[in-house]
Amino acid sequence: MSNCIVAQSGGPTSVINATVAGVVKANQMNPIYEHVYGGLNGIEGILNERFVDLSNMSDEENRILRQTPSSALGSCRYKLKRDNVADFEKLIKIMDKHDIETLFYTGGNDSMDTVAALSEYAEKHNITNHRFVGCPKTVDNDLMLTDHCPGFASAAKFIATTALQTWLDVNVYTRQEVFILETMGRDAGWLAASACLSGHVDILIVPEVPFDKDVFLKRVAECIKEKNKCYVVVSEGAHYADGTYVAAGEAKNDGFGHAVLGGAAKALESIILTSGTASRCKVQDLSTAQRCHASEQSLVDVTESFNLGMSAHMRSMDKAFTGKMVGIKRRPGKDYDVEYFAVEANKVANFVKNFPTEWLLPEMKGLNEDGYNYLRPLIQGTPEFIMKDGLPAYVTPYYMR
Amino acid sequence: MSNCIVAQSGGPTSVINATVAGVVKANQMNPIYEHVYGGLNGIEGILNERFVDLSNMSDEENRILRQTPSSALGSCRYKLKRDNVADFEKLIKIMDKHDIETLFYTGGNDSMDTVAALSEYAEKHNITNHRFVGCPKTVDNDLMLTDHCPGFASAAKFIATTALQTWLDVNVYTRQEVFILETMGRDAGWLAASACLSGHVDILIVPEVPFDKDVFLKRVAECIKEKNKCYVVVSEGAHYADGTYVAAGEAKNDGFGHAVLGGAAKALESIILTSGTASRCKVQDLSTAQRCHASEQSLVDVTESFNLGMSAHMRSMDKAFTGKMVGIKRRPGKDYDVEYFAVEANKVANFVKNFPTEWLLPEMKGLNEDGYNYLRPLIQGTPEFIMKDGLPAYVTPYYMR
Repeated sequence: MSNCIVAQSGGPTSVINATVAGVVKANQMNPIYEHVYGGLNGIEGILNERFVDLSNMSDEENRILRQTPSSALGSCRYKLKRDNVADFEKLIKIMDKHDIETLFYTGGNDSMDTVAALSEYAEKHNITNHRFVGCPKTVDNDLMLTDHCPGFASAAKFIATTALQTWLDVNVYTRQEVFILETMGRDAGWLAASACLSGHVDILIVPEVPFDKDVFLKRVAECIKEKNKCYVVVSEGAHYADGTYVAAGEAKNDGFGHAVLGGAAKALESIILTSGTASRCKVQDLSTAQRCHASEQSLVDVTESFNLGMSAHMRSMDKAFTGKMVGIKRRPGKDYDVEYFAVEANKVANFVKNFPTEWLLPEMKGLNEDGYNYLRPLIQGTPEFIMKDGLPAYVTPYYMR
Repeated sequence: MSNCIVAQSGGPTSVINATVAGVVKANQMNPIYEHVYGGLNGIEGILNERFVDLSNMSDEENRILRQTPSSALGSCRYKLKRDNVADFEKLIKIMDKHDIETLFYTGGNDSMDTVAALSEYAEKHNITNHRFVGCPKTVDNDLMLTDHCPGFASAAKFIATTALQTWLDVNVYTRQEVFILETMGRDAGWLAASACLSGHVDILIVPEVPFDKDVFLKRVAECIKEKNKCYVVVSEGAHYADGTYVAAGEAKNDGFGHAVLGGAAKALESIILTSGTASRCKVQDLSTAQRCHASEQSLVDVTESFNLGMSAHMRSMDKAFTGKMVGIKRRPGKDYDVEYFAVEANKVANFVKNFPTEWLLPEMKGLNEDGYNYLRPLIQGTPEFIMKDGLPAYVTPYYMR
């Protein structure tokens, strides 16, 4: 009997571990693999044979793992390049040595590219005893074909909750005030848009619509005139029509050549104060907390993340199942319901699913009903959290044991 | 039968409304006042006769009010100056007009000063039919005589939870990284110290100990050497021995002449990167969210806040009860237990209770057991939240109705 391995890549989320928990639980329910290994720090760790054995995880640990944010197996930003044959050969050799048949890889765009590249390599070299399966995750919700990505909904719920709470906070004084909430979202406005679920966003700025300073200041002035307050939400990746980031000047690069942004809200504050449109601004950059504040896990999200792990494992009984990503399809109908399916990973890799501009109101005024109808079902339900000494109980990361 | 009024002042907290809910509930249980008015926007609104009638609040609204963060009655930063006799005369006149016997004022240092000033004025002018009672609140936990202040524990719980979650996040990559969490705390380190409850703070910087750059960089270097990571928590009010704020250059002033800070974490990042002690830093400034993220309400905190409102109301049956603040006394013994008491408001006003330096480990290494023993009981328990459409249900602010 062969083994499988599950690993995590890219930026962590509040529910990424639930997919691992799903793979482990599925194998306990139907042990088609002898061992379920966890690969530490993604492909980078697997290439160094850094494994743990997750096969006999207790049900309690499985439950705590599901509520633990961030990647319990560790992550990496190591990109498997198609021309780096040595890496491919080494990985196959390690899988041979440990009799690992299937690699489940949880991640975003880059990870799906890794899954696609590995399965292409295997096919090209007639390697039939190793298979590669992707499980989606990303707070950015920008993966193609799947209705949404595990991790997004919990980040959205944290953002919407925080927007509601800070909106209540900013209104307590009678003084003039603009509040600017900055969310993640380099290329796509899903996270910023989710703040609208609070019901109190006056101005929504997403990367899908070029930032127009005049329209922005006009709208701020309108709100100030109407109620002496204005609540603004901006994606870190907001940019002008010529592509210049609103946060320009503060942009750096990560290992993949993506811009690392920050400071769009601060830049807007400066625009407002310099123009004299309002006399006082407050800025809240949700930063790292938005992708790991698992206290706001959505029950829908964590359940789907777990189910995707189960589904990936169950589908892998089919020996032809490789180079695929499992995903979520929303069923038609009034009540929210989903089914799980699988697509070619190469149809997902390296594309970006933007927030639909047809769901946006004109002049940065937020979302229309289609936007709300998409978002609202995803944040429903609160899991029952296991607490320890006043704080949520989390597993010790496997890479620290 | 006379009436009473309850109002809120200063920065909001996650549980400040529970005190109002307590006053209202106590009067429903023992209607010693005909009406319980809510004064809108603190003293500022009362001087403009902006009231609502809270007397007949339903139990459901009372429950939702308790879980609603921020000041549902609105707040103000209006300081009643002792030499501004016109304000005092006007206030007494308004209280006469509406037959308001007792004013319950929820706030921090400045609000207790208002309570003291009003009762001194009344005494001086032989006004015996108006009384003034303070209820403590402040996330900063810096009020004298009370063991702790409602609002602090929930902010502490949010901070400790976020510290735990972001610590998990920053560890997923093998790369070198320093994470710097900035909390509120202009003069006192209570909030920053509470991050230590996560169990993962390597460096704690509070205003009570002058910031020493060399000790700081030595400690960062030690952590980097040991584990390639370093988790730093800093109060916004951290300063050098000569009083210069670490965040210097970004300091502004609020209406009371207090420094409005921000940017201590960014300043530390700059110190680390400039010195070459580490190659990568991430900054999270918890900003406004820490005082209103009521999703992390501590059950202890919200219960005590409610009980203080009840206690203030009940004590006010005594016609001599004025110029007092109700507070919390921790009972001796192994298990956490409290009793409520009252002190002269003028013994609280305009003092600052610092975090005890004897609870700090040397070289910014965090807390000793005394510190943990003080903090840990305060964050226990999670209220059962009433949700609405995936988000917590909150009352519409009374000043917006």
